[in-house]
Amino acid sequence: MAKWDISPVVQGLQQARHEWRERQNRIKEIGGRELPSKEVLKSILDDLCGILFPMRLGPADLRQETEDYYISYTLDRVLNALYGQVKLALDYELKSKSRQNYEQDSAAISQQAEIVVQNFAKTLPHIRRLLDADVCAAYEGDPAAHSVDEVLLCYPGILAIIHHRLAHQLYPHVPLLSRIISELAHSATGIDIHPGASIGSGFFIDHGTGIVIGETCIIGEKVRIYQAVTLGAKRFETDADGSLKKDYQRHPIVEDQVIIYAGATILGRITIGKGSVIGGNVWLTHSVPAGSQILQSPSESHHQKKTA
Amino acid sequence: MAKWDISPVVQGLQQARHEWRERQNRIKEIGGRELPSKEVLKSILDDLCGILFPMRLGPADLRQETEDYYISYTLDRVLNALYGQVKLALDYELKSKSRQNYEQDSAAISQQAEIVVQNFAKTLPHIRRLLDADVCAAYEGDPAAHSVDEVLLCYPGILAIIHHRLAHQLYPHVPLLSRIISELAHSATGIDIHPGASIGSGFFIDHGTGIVIGETCIIGEKVRIYQAVTLGAKRFETDADGSLKKDYQRHPIVEDQVIIYAGATILGRITIGKGSVIGGNVWLTHSVPAGSQILQSPSESHHQKKTA
Amino acid sequence: MAKWDISPVVQGLQQARHEWRERQNRIKEIGGRELPSKEVLKSILDDLCGILFPMRLGPADLRQETEDYYISYTLDRVLNALYGQVKLALDYELKSKSRQNYEQDSAAISQQAEIVVQNFAKTLPHIRRLLDADVCAAYEGDPAAHSVDEVLLCYPGILAIIHHRLAHQLYPHVPLLSRIISELAHSATGIDIHPGASIGSGFFIDHGTGIVIGETCIIGEKVRIYQAVTLGAKRFETDADGSLKKDYQRHPIVEDQVIIYAGATILGRITIGKGSVIGGNVWLTHSVPAGSQILQSPSESHHQKKTA
Amino acid sequence: MAKWDISPVVQGLQQARHEWRERQNRIKEIGGRELPSKEVLKSILDDLCGILFPMRLGPADLRQETEDYYISYTLDRVLNALYGQVKLALDYELKSKSRQNYEQDSAAISQQAEIVVQNFAKTLPHIRRLLDADVCAAYEGDPAAHSVDEVLLCYPGILAIIHHRLAHQLYPHVPLLSRIISELAHSATGIDIHPGASIGSGFFIDHGTGIVIGETCIIGEKVRIYQAVTLGAKRFETDADGSLKKDYQRHPIVEDQVIIYAGATILGRITIGKGSVIGGNVWLTHSVPAGSQILQSPSESHHQKKTA
Amino acid sequence: MAKWDISPVVQGLQQARHEWRERQNRIKEIGGRELPSKEVLKSILDDLCGILFPMRLGPADLRQETEDYYISYTLDRVLNALYGQVKLALDYELKSKSRQNYEQDSAAISQQAEIVVQNFAKTLPHIRRLLDADVCAAYEGDPAAHSVDEVLLCYPGILAIIHHRLAHQLYPHVPLLSRIISELAHSATGIDIHPGASIGSGFFIDHGTGIVIGETCIIGEKVRIYQAVTLGAKRFETDADGSLKKDYQRHPIVEDQVIIYAGATILGRITIGKGSVIGGNVWLTHSVPAGSQILQSPSESHHQKKTA
Amino acid sequence: MAKWDISPVVQGLQQARHEWRERQNRIKEIGGRELPSKEVLKSILDDLCGILFPMRLGPADLRQETEDYYISYTLDRVLNALYGQVKLALDYELKSKSRQNYEQDSAAISQQAEIVVQNFAKTLPHIRRLLDADVCAAYEGDPAAHSVDEVLLCYPGILAIIHHRLAHQLYPHVPLLSRIISELAHSATGIDIHPGASIGSGFFIDHGTGIVIGETCIIGEKVRIYQAVTLGAKRFETDADGSLKKDYQRHPIVEDQVIIYAGATILGRITIGKGSVIGGNVWLTHSVPAGSQILQSPSESHHQKKTA
Repeated sequence: MAKWDISPVVQGLQQARHEWRERQNRIKEIGGRELPSKEVLKSILDDLCGILFPMRLGPADLRQETEDYYISYTLDRVLNALYGQVKLALDYELKSKSRQNYEQDSAAISQQAEIVVQNFAKTLPHIRRLLDADVCAAYEGDPAAHSVDEVLLCYPGILAIIHHRLAHQLYPHVPLLSRIISELAHSATGIDIHPGASIGSGFFIDHGTGIVIGETCIIGEKVRIYQAVTLGAKRFETDADGSLKKDYQRHPIVEDQVIIYAGATILGRITIGKGSVIGGNVWLTHSVPAGSQILQSPSESHHQKKTA
Repeated sequence: MAKWDISPVVQGLQQARHEWRERQNRIKEIGGRELPSKEVLKSILDDLCGILFPMRLGPADLRQETEDYYISYTLDRVLNALYGQVKLALDYELKSKSRQNYEQDSAAISQQAEIVVQNFAKTLPHIRRLLDADVCAAYEGDPAAHSVDEVLLCYPGILAIIHHRLAHQLYPHVPLLSRIISELAHSATGIDIHPGASIGSGFFIDHGTGIVIGETCIIGEKVRIYQAVTLGAKRFETDADGSLKKDYQRHPIVEDQVIIYAGATILGRITIGKGSVIGGNVWLTHSVPAGSQILQSPSESHHQKKTA
Repeated sequence: MAKWDISPVVQGLQQARHEWRERQNRIKEIGGRELPSKEVLKSILDDLCGILFPMRLGPADLRQETEDYYISYTLDRVLNALYGQVKLALDYELKSKSRQNYEQDSAAISQQAEIVVQNFAKTLPHIRRLLDADVCAAYEGDPAAHSVDEVLLCYPGILAIIHHRLAHQLYPHVPLLSRIISELAHSATGIDIHPGASIGSGFFIDHGTGIVIGETCIIGEKVRIYQAVTLGAKRFETDADGSLKKDYQRHPIVEDQVIIYAGATILGRITIGKGSVIGGNVWLTHSVPAGSQILQSPSESHHQKKTA
Repeated sequence: MAKWDISPVVQGLQQARHEWRERQNRIKEIGGRELPSKEVLKSILDDLCGILFPMRLGPADLRQETEDYYISYTLDRVLNALYGQVKLALDYELKSKSRQNYEQDSAAISQQAEIVVQNFAKTLPHIRRLLDADVCAAYEGDPAAHSVDEVLLCYPGILAIIHHRLAHQLYPHVPLLSRIISELAHSATGIDIHPGASIGSGFFIDHGTGIVIGETCIIGEKVRIYQAVTLGAKRFETDADGSLKKDYQRHPIVEDQVIIYAGATILGRITIGKGSVIGGNVWLTHSVPAGSQILQSPSESHHQKKTA
Repeated sequence: MAKWDISPVVQGLQQARHEWRERQNRIKEIGGRELPSKEVLKSILDDLCGILFPMRLGPADLRQETEDYYISYTLDRVLNALYGQVKLALDYELKSKSRQNYEQDSAAISQQAEIVVQNFAKTLPHIRRLLDADVCAAYEGDPAAHSVDEVLLCYPGILAIIHHRLAHQLYPHVPLLSRIISELAHSATGIDIHPGASIGSGFFIDHGTGIVIGETCIIGEKVRIYQAVTLGAKRFETDADGSLKKDYQRHPIVEDQVIIYAGATILGRITIGKGSVIGGNVWLTHSVPAGSQILQSPSESHHQKKTA
Repeated sequence: MAKWDISPVVQGLQQARHEWRERQNRIKEIGGRELPSKEVLKSILDDLCGILFPMRLGPADLRQETEDYYISYTLDRVLNALYGQVKLALDYELKSKSRQNYEQDSAAISQQAEIVVQNFAKTLPHIRRLLDADVCAAYEGDPAAHSVDEVLLCYPGILAIIHHRLAHQLYPHVPLLSRIISELAHSATGIDIHPGASIGSGFFIDHGTGIVIGETCIIGEKVRIYQAVTLGAKRFETDADGSLKKDYQRHPIVEDQVIIYAGATILGRITIGKGSVIGGNVWLTHSVPAGSQILQSPSESHHQKKTA
């Protein structure tokens, strides 16, 4: 049986943490994590999926005649759980903004969290309607889709857009929390939608793996996007002191009824006009007017005869 | 402690569901979900992996001298579980096809499910042999693979092809169920193979993330495919009334011994002739004869001297 | 109630396994799996994440004043668990190398495993420092990152690099085990870094889905990589007998401060000089000097007026 | 590594089972267990406890303002689960009664199960009122009880009587199922109440371990019983052929407001008159009139001087 | 599929709850349970067992060289969890005492809980020593005990006394919480020790099922007790208004080195003098001097010749 | 947030452990628990119950046509798990016997464990037959038993005797392990049968709570025992130095067809002759001939008229 020499490792790690915390101005003595929890948020999102689509994503033994009871009970429970996470997140945001003279007002945070959660609850019927339109768009847009149920049960794009529409609602108030929600969807689907992105109704993602949609994107209605599409920033602006500018408009605007095929890369604060079609693998860094059809150059490949 | 005003939310959601169900002709009064279950299918697939590769993917404490007992017991159990899911799926398919005058015949569905499941069981030894060839193809095709065990334990492509070969077998009978199986693999590996695709033996996927293989693809023997390859449809045909045509041949035919490198996009009902090599990032929408080598244009990039 | 005819299936599977084992020279009579376990390694990695970042990735109820106790206890426990897996892996490697005259020396394996694990433990403080630099690089390199905590909690690239830095340390001694670790990260994030790759400090991956970094890559300091980048092999060399050469240098060298944008494909043992910028979707198979800026050809797409 | 010689064991067990089944006339070929399940009934009883006392035995995060929603949703769910178990039990009872010419009528069993479950549901408010009286009786009868909440949370007698009142309701229809419920309580509390026993309101059990209450007991209102009390049968009557008579009245009748102290044994179809007090360890096999006080003989022990 | 008529049941239960709450003066509008939780306390007790006996009742993979780290980490964690439960319990006690003009002072409760928990922690080494003496007493007092390890692993009496010594320490401050702890042991072992009872060191319980030890018992050192022994109250005193007096001295005092054999019943505030031996099944309601030997009357049974 | 002063507690516990280990001659430096595990044995016993009664206590979804496969697979698995526990137990017994000059021979222990486990396996068919007789005895001996299935599913006595018959088989070889098994049954049923006791076939326990059967008991065939019966030792013999003699014959011999009613106490190495009936609450410390009927004295209680 081996005996490990762990003391130098523990001390080495302690020293490394100490240096990090000094650099980050974070030396303190006692206390716990005080951050929103990925596990708790995953459970909240699972419940919200059930609330939005009780007979498809709710508990397996739910029956239609009692779905309102299930929703009422679960909604109250999930709002309380969310309330707890929102309080942690608000507290964290406040502390981050003014680490020096941070004076935490617990009552004010509770009150603000209550407002955030109650407003979030109010939007759920609207979000359900948006998602219904997303489901229809997928059914109507994919020859392989045999039913709306298949869309809801099998399309990763639907899971991603449910998470996004909920996270987006929370983003202005609790950005860190929203980001955790969007990463839950990213890990499950390979679709990375920043919660800050604004997306209109009837949005359809097919296959989805590798899609990236940036923080300040604005996407219109009935837009369709395929796998590996990037709606990103072109370059990052820096401040006078050379550090990155944060939080400015740097991602594309995609107008209604645009279709973007697989692997297309669209970068910068440009506008893709209404009804345009962007071909697969296209690389686009300037605006195009409504009705454009942008295809990859025809000379994209050449044949080469096998020698032997 | 916050008190949530949930009544308007519950009513709003009820109203949204009501509208959706009216539009979908789905108002009913009582009853449960009656759809195949993702969780149950996940457990069935885990068991089938153990049945196919008992000493690698079976239970950790299994020993070789009792593997046949394990397989016999588990196989009976898993066929019963699958039988339950197939009955739900057949019932669903029937109901979907004739929602108006649907007269469910429980005995007929049970009988049909029994045939589907028994036939599925019979193909398992054949599927094991196909998968053995897939494992060999990976070992022989990747310089980084040190053993066939590494392939079986570490290559996401193997997990994807196990799921696919099982789902493909079920696809003609219970398409929705097969799609759920393929999405289980998609979520775990980022590889999205539609269960309708037909794939020959000795198939090797390397890395795999972002691969999309469409419903009507036909892939020959000893084909090798890298990450982010798309075998998709070029455009969607529409009916006289403008709605999408479904279920027609719209994806590529890839003949034996073709290699398709990362990021290539091949679209439409075209044929890639035997032994062809399709280079990375190539965009291809027309057939190529056997032995072709298609590379991206050499002028694909240009250097730009740094100014400062 | 259906009765399944399982005997022919069990016999068919038995025959298929028998054939496989004969071809692989693996017929034996008794014994269990004797391979490292994905589940056990997942649990070890979770604990190591907690040891490295106790207040962010450790148990939810941990408090700062007892983090050293937590680390000491968990470290001893995790090293023992790892020791068990390393012994299995060493035994497996030995057996693979000389299947014919394999004479397993249990004591020698235990001794070697002890050395591997103790040396691994010693590097943990160094790994923590590397990871701190990675976190800083992400915060400084992404306008969307609001805090270092967001980076640690939400960026899949961080999860991938934690797994990589740990797996890389173990790779020379237990390659199969390291590959299982890297696939744990690949499945969760879509980022596929081979444990053999060498990566300098301050490494930043954004979004990450679809990234592939090959076994013999050498990546310098402060390199930044976006989603769907491939650092791969160009072609595979074969032996005189036509079988693949394994284990030779075939992947790129990426020098310090290089940035590689989304979808770029860089293949072969080439060198990307210090400070170069490789544009999105670029396809690159030759070395470029320090300070290069490689962009995709401007003629990459053409507009096509809608006809009707 | 040991190799076990399991074949003779498996064959020996097979032979033993075969002999048993022959003796029990139970040889059949295929099929599953088809008996009510202890695990499912445990989960049903846990839910029923929550339905009856939502804010004490319901889910930890339930809140008073939504308790009706919780109850409605859970009640529907639990009645469906119970319905499944009742159908299994009815089928079992039918088969047991006429193993020879058993012709199972699935529709008739479903209909009967529906009636049993619906009637059971109707009695729940009445059972809650009985249990409220039981809680009050415990609080008023035990000097150690500080609150009604303590009674509900800490007294095993309450857990036993909840289970009993529910099982008793089902006993005439599904006796086997009721017995499983009563054993769930017996195992958790050491209190063994046969579901056939009839027990009036305001029943108080203190400590409880070792209490046995027989099948045909009739217990009045406001009766109090301490640990290790037996209300049993005196002797068993036999048929002409020497086998036990089953199902006849053979246990005591205990009238209102009787108190029976610890360890008392009361046997046979005798009557303990209203308001009687039966002392600890008393052995009683004849009826006593109302208002009796039965104590153990005062000569029950003698002192014996220690010799050294 | 059955459809349940649940509305009248839900309303009936609502009415029953309403009546109960009115009678108990407990109508309120919003809020959760706010009571200590059996599940949380079970987990706390499991951890405390591990802290007290790390190499016997701690985690299976603990090793001796790191037991102090395990204890430090777990102790901090468990004290925090206990702190949460103690605050709930203190709040509950306060509310119960003055339901009318209850004005909850959250800060005062937190402060008091902190003192209770810190003092509890301080006594743990003393409790471990008491328990060591209990283990020795069992080993020395039972011919069937082959080692002290067997005592610690197999004797339910040890489990009961660990729970008791911990619960007893908390009893003056949080009686409801202590009662929940004692019922955890009661349910697992059949041994019912009220947390108020005072028990000296070197206490040995053999077999234990059915033992009842009342709230105000005082038990000296090196006392030995067998199964089904009751140390109870003789009769209950009532107030002027006929309701039970609570919280007065009503259970026996058992002096040092007394042995009480199985089934003995000892009732009332009497004293069993030092070194006395109370025989099995003895019924005792008066004090006995030191060195007494109390046996059951020798005429306790008579023989009766079988007739046939 | 409270900060706990844990250092003195940790040091106090360390000191207490140090003193205990010094007294027990157990100071060592490194290493883990190395004792059989309650949790592992619980899982082994659950599997053995399934192996013995597959269609009643096996997995819920088992079907009769595959029960032999289930048994073969599970038996091999459970024998391996038991083998691991037996090795730990044998090592522990050896170490206990000669702590001074203990020289552990790992190979010898493995060989001995293999023999113990293989012999144990061989007796399983015999044990199943004994248990079948036990089930029949219960059905024939209890008027409340409606079927043999009810006996197997609901009677705690059956659970206890299954555990006993298995533990008894192992007792001569691994006594500590057997005691852990018997305590698993004791905790679940309140029935405490020492694994050393020898019990003939057709044994029936009714109700069972509080039964104690001592280590050296010998019980014949078709014996029936009710709740709270003690078959114990009368007094403990001591060595010359005053310490208890261990391991001598000190418990009753109960011959065939004896019935012992609830609460009877039978102490010492006495013999209860064939066919005797021992009445409830009887206290018996001398042998009785075959055919005896021992009843409690008729003067066991007196009536006392209520005064008011």
